[in-house]
Amino acid sequence: MAPVCLSYTGAVPRVVVDVMPKPEILDPQGKAVHGALPRLGFTGVTDVRQGKRFELEVDGEVTDDVLEQVRQMAETLLSNPVIENFTVRVEGA
Amino acid sequence: MAPVCLSYTGAVPRVVVDVMPKPEILDPQGKAVHGALPRLGFTGVTDVRQGKRFELEVDGEVTDDVLEQVRQMAETLLSNPVIENFTVRVEGA
Repeated sequence: MAPVCLSYTGAVPRVVVDVMPKPEILDPQGKAVHGALPRLGFTGVTDVRQGKRFELEVDGEVTDDVLEQVRQMAETLLSNPVIENFTVRVEGA
Repeated sequence: MAPVCLSYTGAVPRVVVDVMPKPEILDPQGKAVHGALPRLGFTGVTDVRQGKRFELEVDGEVTDDVLEQVRQMAETLLSNPVIENFTVRVEGA
């Protein structure tokens, strides 16, 4: 299960789904960013991976049942489980 | 400043940059996901916003200086400050 991580950036609790390419999958977007950094004068970054972040607002309280539903959404719609990993967590007070 | 949020998913500390469309900016990708959910049988989600997540691996320790550099990268390369907000945080032990 994903770690539940609370940060106090908003009043409404949000469910956040992070989708990242699996470590063994080539990530051309991340590579492009990584390649651009030295040209802009930034050094010291050894790797960049780029993924997606979804913020879902839900009706009412965020129960275990809701999180289970969001996990199913992440698996069927928000990510491609063949090439991507996802984590689900709650953010906000 | 972005909240520093530690979760123990990996051994190497990573700097994570989350980039999201500003609240007043239309988000067609999020709207498309939101529209697809009921068709897949998911209810109870009132809004979806889609953004980007970058995971940066840095050489050595993640100092305040490194975080300041990453903030500059986020502002100049990873986000478009006119239409997007970003947060920078450290993840990992």
